[in-house]
Order: sequence, then structure tokens, then C-alpha cells
Amino acid sequence: MSDLGPISQQERAARAQAVFDHLDTPLDALVLFDDQFIFYYSGFAFFPTERPIALIITRGGERVLFVPRLEREHAAQTDEAERVVDYPEFPGQPHPMRHLSDLLAELGLDRARLGVDHDGYPPVMGYDGPALSEQLGGARVRRVTRALDHQMALKSPAEVALIRESAHWGAHAHHLLQTYTRVGENETEVEARATKEATASMIAALGEGYRGQNRWLSGAVALYRGQIGVHSALPHAMTTGATFGHGDTLVTGAGAAVWGYLSELERTMFVGEASARQRLFFGHMLNLQDIAFEALRPGRTCAEVDRAVRAYYEREGLWDHWRHHVGHSLGQRIHESPFLDLGDDRPLEPGMVLSVEPGLYVPGLGGFRHSDTILITANGMELLTDYPRDLESLTLPA
Amino acid sequence: MSDLGPISQQERAARAQAVFDHLDTPLDALVLFDDQFIFYYSGFAFFPTERPIALIITRGGERVLFVPRLEREHAAQTDEAERVVDYPEFPGQPHPMRHLSDLLAELGLDRARLGVDHDGYPPVMGYDGPALSEQLGGARVRRVTRALDHQMALKSPAEVALIRESAHWGAHAHHLLQTYTRVGENETEVEARATKEATASMIAALGEGYRGQNRWLSGAVALYRGQIGVHSALPHAMTTGATFGHGDTLVTGAGAAVWGYLSELERTMFVGEASARQRLFFGHMLNLQDIAFEALRPGRTCAEVDRAVRAYYEREGLWDHWRHHVGHSLGQRIHESPFLDLGDDRPLEPGMVLSVEPGLYVPGLGGFRHSDTILITANGMELLTDYPRDLESLTLPA
Repeated sequence: MSDLGPISQQERAARAQAVFDHLDTPLDALVLFDDQFIFYYSGFAFFPTERPIALIITRGGERVLFVPRLEREHAAQTDEAERVVDYPEFPGQPHPMRHLSDLLAELGLDRARLGVDHDGYPPVMGYDGPALSEQLGGARVRRVTRALDHQMALKSPAEVALIRESAHWGAHAHHLLQTYTRVGENETEVEARATKEATASMIAALGEGYRGQNRWLSGAVALYRGQIGVHSALPHAMTTGATFGHGDTLVTGAGAAVWGYLSELERTMFVGEASARQRLFFGHMLNLQDIAFEALRPGRTCAEVDRAVRAYYEREGLWDHWRHHVGHSLGQRIHESPFLDLGDDRPLEPGMVLSVEPGLYVPGLGGFRHSDTILITANGMELLTDYPRDLESLTLPA
Repeated sequence: MSDLGPISQQERAARAQAVFDHLDTPLDALVLFDDQFIFYYSGFAFFPTERPIALIITRGGERVLFVPRLEREHAAQTDEAERVVDYPEFPGQPHPMRHLSDLLAELGLDRARLGVDHDGYPPVMGYDGPALSEQLGGARVRRVTRALDHQMALKSPAEVALIRESAHWGAHAHHLLQTYTRVGENETEVEARATKEATASMIAALGEGYRGQNRWLSGAVALYRGQIGVHSALPHAMTTGATFGHGDTLVTGAGAAVWGYLSELERTMFVGEASARQRLFFGHMLNLQDIAFEALRPGRTCAEVDRAVRAYYEREGLWDHWRHHVGHSLGQRIHESPFLDLGDDRPLEPGMVLSVEPGLYVPGLGGFRHSDTILITANGMELLTDYPRDLESLTLPA
């Protein structure tokens, strides 16, 4: 039984106090609609629907959670906001945005400088409604998503511990996936078996109180998502329920949900001894990832890392096989900003957690991509995923 | 082996031609970012990420799909758009919104009247970028979501056939769920067994070519989602992995994904003979649903249906147990508009498909809600779900 648990109430409250320091302009309050920001600042985990939910954070760090009547008991049980206010229903009469503007007026914020993640509740399912700036004629509404993303990108020791635990169980699920993958076996069944067993082991280890609380993953999972044989040449293939055959190139994906956090582990594997062409691209792919690992250190920009990797594609004549940038941040979300991309000039800072996954895609042969989750440290980077990446370890018996 | 298949290419092309008739103002083209609208008009099924995807529909019904390089082959394989254009990467250099505005300029649409579902790509994962109206200084950008929702709400015979098939397999999964639910059994295992067996039967019946293509469901599923015993008093409870006990009130949920479409079936059940209080609320809940069934006919507004049902809560003194409106449209999305709600004045029209699910929630006892999927017909309504709703049929052996 682990002593690992959710992010503490103190830490979430401190985030809500500190968020104003991340803004480049003084604001009186934030109004957040995104489920991931709301969970980050208040601990309230929910699945977004057409019924708006919002979190108001005042300059003093007070958090007011705004929910439909339907969610009142759920919110009261699990959130850490200082206050919960509910409205009857969506579309309702009056509309929830009218209730929200009444609440902001009551808080003295209807003519204030407000930071938002989106100007009004975003389009989810059948939601329809006015922008917050329309609803509140007198307020100045400003999108501050980039600042919120920056705060979220700098992971605390408690967050890194949860991501590290996720990486541990992702590797365990991946190990089972690799073990059960044999010629003639079916993709769907191998995935289901590895995922089920890894999840059971994780729950046994983390104890009854464990919760995944993640929108993208539940339990510990390891999957192929159809990236089998020639289909692995499509980076985000759809599951096809394929049968493994001799000579297949395989691209995997594994991770686990631990108290809201996840990690990413992907490996390129071969069924039977790799051919000369498979070895060639596998070797290039390892080189690309090594270049990225070397480039990842605080003070460098994300763009510099992508440029270092792109130079190798250029030098080796591999552009035909390029499909995407080097990686992305992650933590609560499966993809977060900043991105290891030419167009992202944000500097790397200690505490950032990113995937490193340059890939090569060869029609008719397969895809070649390892993905590891790394932490930017004071001097460079540290791997949070721990799984063999060499050809021999990733060659399955034929 | 069924002859049921995906919506035909002709039907999707006709939707893209007809969409302009649904608008209340003349526009030159649409630019759509929402994955469900893009699937609806072009057949391109994808999972939205921070890499923008857009569908342009010109006044003449020509469809241009705009995708990241990563999706080019996937788009070329599966979409039905007349043209596919790709951009390198997000955030990229220049930003994808710049590529999109160049494409609109090439199409002669950069100074046009454009209808959108959202002014720019919506916030997904770590996406950040300008509004389309900012990017295109000279265009007039107008949100037309309500008109698109209206077109989507009017289901064709082919769509109704897929929803009916979904309802059939949802009922099958529910039957298995009911059969396997016994005192001492575990929620998670019963759900998994019913879901797995129902999905296998469905795939066997629909054939190898079958695809779910739905963002919310895959296969045929039946679940409790933690709505067991006193926890069923929370309408959208989280899964708790509970063990069934004598006297429990249970609230279920079942459906199936069939070529992009889904359905909704929910039942209130009891483990062992219902107590007098359980019978009382079960009876009120049946009455509420009967009132809604009676009120559902073309020409009535959605609000009128909700008001008819609310009158019963009022008359019987049940407001303490009210949590939500009567129902919602559905089809591709698990919740669509219009809503059977006080605040929705849209009239019911033949071809609309809605859930009917007024509920009662009694702290300490449980939740009481049946949900059925219905079709508005020329004269009234027709049930698409076919599952017993009486107390005797829904009482499990103790």
C-alpha cells in the first residue's frame, strides 16, 4: 500500500493564490470554464457536458464554483472551493450565463478586469449561449490561457511524483503487452489482457482509495491502436483488431491515470528479427531521440530542440518520413503546452514535463517512434519513463 | 450479417448542399471546426487534438478538408470531401490559422460572409491561436451553430435506422446486465461481462465491416456508473466498484455505437422486492415519463413538454427530488440540441430523436429514472428503445 495520494488541498489553494503572479497584466479575477483548469485549481473532477460549470478565482485567492443543480451534491462532496453556487438547469430560464453574471455582480466583479480561458462556456455537446463579454457589458474580458498553461507546465514535486508513479505502471502494462504479443494473437485481446492485469496490480499496490481522475486514461493501459505492420505508418491509426504476423513493425502506447496525472511511453517493436530496412529506420529514430535528449535543458527554447532534430532529418534526407514535431508537455492533459515545435519560442524551465517522440513513417513498411516522458531539471533532463529502447530488447520471438 | 452500413456518400453530400437552406441569412461559405459537424458533412471521423482540423463548405456544396500533415493519409483514405489540403504542424511556423486564411483567400473567401460553429479553433488540449475573425480582417464571421444543430436534429430514415439498431444492441447489453446483477456480485465485473458479450454478439451480427465511429461509445455497453443503492441519488455518479446488496435501488445506462450513431436506455431496478417508499417514487417516475410521452408531438415546443412534466412535480410536492429537465436530442452526439427544457422554445418536428428521462432523487434512498429514446413522428412519437419498464420486470431476485 502506497502513501501516494491526491494533490493536497494546500497545494491547490496555493495555485489559486499564485495564478495572478503568472499574468502579464493586473486582473481582478479569473473566470474559468475548462474542466482541466477547474480541477487544477479546485480539485473538482467532472466530465464536461452542455451544462456550464465555472470557477471564479478572486484576486485574494477565493474560489467560487458555479455548477448546475444536478452537480450540487457531487460538488459539495469533492471540491475544495471556498463556496459552491448552483443554478437550476441549462438552457433554463433564465440562461445559466445570466445566473453567472448575477453571481459576478454579487461579488462586485461585473465591471471588473476578468481573465478567462474562453470568452464564455465553450461549445460542448449541444451548448449554446452568449460570450461572457456580451453578457457583462461593463467588464473587460481577456483571454489568459497562455499564462495558465505556463503555471500548469511547471510541475511541483508532488505532481512529478504522481507522473513518475504513472510512468511506473505504464511500463508495467507495456511489459505485459510485449510479453503477450505473439504471432497469431489478436491485437484487441492482447491489449485487453495487458490492460486488465496491469490495472489490477496497480489498484492492489495503490490501495482502495486510489482514483484515476483523468479524462483521457483510466487504470493502467497498453495499446497498439491499430499501429501494426504497414498500418503503423499512420501515426494515429484507428484500431483494426489485427492479428500479429511475422515481420510486423509495431508501435505501442502505454500510460496510467494516477490522481489526475498521466505519462506517455511508446516503443517500436518487431515481430521476429528486423530486416535491414527496419534496422535502418530504427537506428535513425534512436538518433533523432538522442539528439532531442541532448538538446533538452533549461534556457533553451522549445523551438531550438525541434530545430536540432530537424537538422538530422535534413542531413540524412529523411523529410519524406517526417510527420510531426518532437513532443509536447503533459501532466493532467494528454497533450499540454508548450510544444517541442519550431513555432514555440517558450524557454524550457526546470519542472516542465514533456514527451520526446520524433518519428519516421515509411509507407509499406511501418512507423518508427519511441516516446519517453522527461522532466526538465536544473542542468538538463531526467527520464521519468524507464523501459528498454534498444533493438534487441524490442525484438519479439517470431 | 446485416445490410446496415454507414450513411451514404450521397446523403452526406446532400447535407452539405442543403445546409445553406437552414441559415436565416445568406452566407458565402461555412468554416467548421467541430469534429461532429465535420463527420456529419464529410464522413471524416477523428479524435480532436490541439492540431486544428477544419471543413470549408462553399455555397455550391464543395467541401475542402483542412488537416495537419499527420492526418493526410488518414483523411485521403476515409473522407468524402472534394479536396483535402494539409498544413505542416501546430503550433508551426507560420501558425495553422495563417495557412487556413491563405486557403480561404485562394478560394476567394477571405473577404466573404462566413458561417462558423466557433470563431476559430476551439480550446482543445494545449491549442492556442487567433480567432478566425482576427485572422481574416476583411471577412464577416457569424456563428451559425443553432442552424447546424437544427439540420442535425432532423434525422433521415437512414439515421433513424442506425439509431434503431443501436437501441436494439443497447437493450441486449442491458438484458445481460440485468441477468448478471446479483447480490454479492461486483459492479465493475458485471458491467464488463455484459458489455463484452453484447459487443461480441453485435459484431458477429453486423459483420466485419462494422465500425462504431462514435466519440462517446464504442461497441454495445451497459453500465451502472456507480448509481447503486444510496449512490443512485446522484444523477451522474462516478464509478465506485460497489458490490450489489439486498434492497439496493439501481439506475442503469445502456447504448451502442453504430456507424457514428448512438441511443440511450436507462432503467431503475431493485435488488429484491421494492419497499413501499421505493414503489412510491418508482410510480411517480413512471407517471412523469408517461406525461412526457403524451406531450411529445410535432408542433408542441420543447418547453411545453418540460412544463407539462413540471406541473406534476408541483402538484405532487416533488420539487425536492427534481434535479434536471425531461431530456435532450441525441444521434451522433450523446447530448444534442434541442432540449426538453423550459428555456427551449424550439418546436418539435418529425424526425427529431430525443431522450425522455424525467427523474426523482431521494437522498438516503436512491435515484428513480428511466430513459427511453423516441422519434417524433407525423402525429406523435414512437419508442425506439424496446425494454420493459414495469416494476415486476425490473425487480431482481434477492
